[in-house]
Amino acid sequence: MEASTLSRIGLAGLAVMGQNLALNIAEKGFPISVYNRTTSKVDETLQRAQSEGPFPLSGHHTPRDFVLSLQRPRSVIILVKAGSPVDQTIAALSEHMESGDCIIDGGNEWYENTERRIQEVSNRGILYLGMGVSGGEEGARNGPSLMPGGSFQAYNNIKDILEKVAAQVEDGPCVTYIGEGGAGNFVKMVHNGIEYGDMQLISEAYDVLKNVGGLSNEELGEIFGEWNRGELESFLIEITSDIFKVKDDLADGGLVDKILDKTGMKGTGKWTVQQAAELSVAAPTIAASLDCRYLSGLKEERENAAEILREAGLKSGIDKKRLIDDVRQALYASKICSYAQGMNLLRAKSIEKGWNLNLGEMARIWKGGCIIRAVFLDRIKKAYQRNPNLASLIVDPDFAREMVQRQAAWRRVVGTAISAGISTPGMCASLAYFDTYRRARLPANLVQAQRDLFGAHTYERIDRPGAFHTEWTKLARKSNSAGVLL
Amino acid sequence: MEASTLSRIGLAGLAVMGQNLALNIAEKGFPISVYNRTTSKVDETLQRAQSEGPFPLSGHHTPRDFVLSLQRPRSVIILVKAGSPVDQTIAALSEHMESGDCIIDGGNEWYENTERRIQEVSNRGILYLGMGVSGGEEGARNGPSLMPGGSFQAYNNIKDILEKVAAQVEDGPCVTYIGEGGAGNFVKMVHNGIEYGDMQLISEAYDVLKNVGGLSNEELGEIFGEWNRGELESFLIEITSDIFKVKDDLADGGLVDKILDKTGMKGTGKWTVQQAAELSVAAPTIAASLDCRYLSGLKEERENAAEILREAGLKSGIDKKRLIDDVRQALYASKICSYAQGMNLLRAKSIEKGWNLNLGEMARIWKGGCIIRAVFLDRIKKAYQRNPNLASLIVDPDFAREMVQRQAAWRRVVGTAISAGISTPGMCASLAYFDTYRRARLPANLVQAQRDLFGAHTYERIDRPGAFHTEWTKLARKSNSAGVLL
Repeated sequence: MEASTLSRIGLAGLAVMGQNLALNIAEKGFPISVYNRTTSKVDETLQRAQSEGPFPLSGHHTPRDFVLSLQRPRSVIILVKAGSPVDQTIAALSEHMESGDCIIDGGNEWYENTERRIQEVSNRGILYLGMGVSGGEEGARNGPSLMPGGSFQAYNNIKDILEKVAAQVEDGPCVTYIGEGGAGNFVKMVHNGIEYGDMQLISEAYDVLKNVGGLSNEELGEIFGEWNRGELESFLIEITSDIFKVKDDLADGGLVDKILDKTGMKGTGKWTVQQAAELSVAAPTIAASLDCRYLSGLKEERENAAEILREAGLKSGIDKKRLIDDVRQALYASKICSYAQGMNLLRAKSIEKGWNLNLGEMARIWKGGCIIRAVFLDRIKKAYQRNPNLASLIVDPDFAREMVQRQAAWRRVVGTAISAGISTPGMCASLAYFDTYRRARLPANLVQAQRDLFGAHTYERIDRPGAFHTEWTKLARKSNSAGVLL
Repeated sequence: MEASTLSRIGLAGLAVMGQNLALNIAEKGFPISVYNRTTSKVDETLQRAQSEGPFPLSGHHTPRDFVLSLQRPRSVIILVKAGSPVDQTIAALSEHMESGDCIIDGGNEWYENTERRIQEVSNRGILYLGMGVSGGEEGARNGPSLMPGGSFQAYNNIKDILEKVAAQVEDGPCVTYIGEGGAGNFVKMVHNGIEYGDMQLISEAYDVLKNVGGLSNEELGEIFGEWNRGELESFLIEITSDIFKVKDDLADGGLVDKILDKTGMKGTGKWTVQQAAELSVAAPTIAASLDCRYLSGLKEERENAAEILREAGLKSGIDKKRLIDDVRQALYASKICSYAQGMNLLRAKSIEKGWNLNLGEMARIWKGGCIIRAVFLDRIKKAYQRNPNLASLIVDPDFAREMVQRQAAWRRVVGTAISAGISTPGMCASLAYFDTYRRARLPANLVQAQRDLFGAHTYERIDRPGAFHTEWTKLARKSNSAGVLL
């Protein structure tokens, strides 16, 4: 093949995400080769490139033809299921690749797998990127948020492509070089954890408005639509408004009411919670959202428990208009806490791994393309620009002021839900996180006393340095009987 | 050495826990050999065996002498730091051991390390137990709760010793064969997770009573003492009462007020939270207790946040007497939820690993010796005896009735704390868990609709079988503009 007919980049793995990303790249004018083990997918993609284009896309039926159709240094994006399919695809492709070529894994991969693969392919001089891709099928086609980590050289080879393909917002394309090793996968994982938190908090707002406030789907559609024109403006609020507007065509009423309340999940939310524990970072809102997915799966158990515990929950009167406004404020404040947790998790990992993550840049590339895209990410970006060492979003002067302004409404919503027996685990977790973080003095002194008593773990004092141990039981019993002994 | 002078069992690793357990065994009349790499510890133990006894305890200064001083099949308990020190100790001792002999690791070891070691020593026919030991130094000396897992044959070799050494309660000694592999370590890990939860909940009760109710240390000592004569009767409530009675001898007032509010931790709480996520089990109360330990460590950040967020938290009047009674009920109900989480985590792991854990027996052996020993564990035992397949402690008829009876007080305490800006993350997490678990219908339908909208994940319906996908956005926009188009 002549150099002039070689493609600029390749993409292997043509499920919907892969097809859409390939078409996006081709549409931006970068000639692309595509490959899939089941060759019908190759033909399908070629047809779409014609009908949606025509776009410069060529199909290949063997790994060898595919790889040899690429300009050197070759860049191959793979979009296959995380885990061993990635290893198999790397094995099949890398056989035909050369030193300086690069593999870019666009899946939701565990970051340590990426770090292992970076080592493995480096033996043959092959470069590697683990690139988080967010935005679902629609984002892949029209502009995702991209989180590439690994070889900086490999990133530079395709920087022009990624910057054109990514979602575009007013301050640039939603892509940046994240950091070395598995940094791109890790940042995408935390993005997904934050996404879990957002979805949980929105579902709680819905729950309270519907079951405490008695709002109809029509009202909910309007309220979320209205919220999407204010501080909560975001993709998830927008689609939530849309969802309430869809009628059921199989039965009367709104379709959302007919959906089974069992939530599926992939591994990224779980990993986020496990990594938070590993790094000693509190991420209770994200954890609550994961727990709720688990509990949602126990549908039969819950139906049984509802019978047995029918009398739980207390009735009370409600001011509907105030409730709606309160819930908006509670949702916003809870969301800030959840993002604070996610950002602090990124920072902790960045320190551990030496990734030098730029938290403001992370917020910036999430402003478009991805599921958590939201207007307020711009304010997070600015908070970190003002102070890159910000201990927590909560103490950024702007966010702090907003939290204090919204606290009364926030406390009312959670309190009302608790009275009514409507669970708001995410909002509760955010509020408890806020109230724990902002207290100079916690009751942890008692826990330390207990640990010293039964495990001789010793304790520190607030008024002098050193480690202390006390014979608590002996002294307590002595003081008890002191009156008698004297 | 003649057979008659050989020891029945050996113990290596003579820090305080090891010394105390060795003395406990010797005191029960089982001749024991002890060994420690730093030989001064051997002499120290010998002296204690004389002064506290005399007990049948012999000291050895080399691994060889130590091992050869034991009756066959030899049983050697090791009590060294978890991780590589265990591997080193096994290497040093097993060199002199024979087929049929057994090593018993009594440390807080990660269960997979035990499973690896079981494999490793099995090559030479050596048996292995991973045995959780709870009760701290005092328990080791006078009767701990023991959780041995691994070789059933090895367990039977020392069953008579363990049953004499363990704490004794009215329905037997606090030991039972837990299950194969790392089951003993896993059960001990969950025990520690539950312990974290208990300590957190007690510290929250203290926080609310002190900072909302305005109780003094004297009053707190009395209240906890009173609680220890009712449904909350337990070691941790008892020692909490004691702690409030201890005066500071370096300054005025109670010693507890002078303790720095930064909580230390070992790995078991973290592992519990990570395993819960791994097994899709919600354990939010235990997770909240871990998060609070992490947040307690950020003392400087909290002091700074307290300045910035000074205006957070709302004042309100309080009925002190009712608050005290409410907090007691809230603590009890929250505790039941926490134990429900721990038990369900054990069950999930038991199913995964085929351990056949007897949950009622687990509750029974925790009734004495260990840190979480409490009267209400007998009721947990009975709940599982009544119904070994109990989905959750919460739906056991007795506990369910208690929860419903206490819910009003529970909701008042959490609501009051939320209003006051006093965080009760553990109680909140328990209550949210309760209210989530007991609801037949959760707002997870909305989450599924969102996932179907942006990820084409499909959803199920409540009224007919099958997987469905909807073009949400298209339909929502259509219904929006329907009025215009017709």
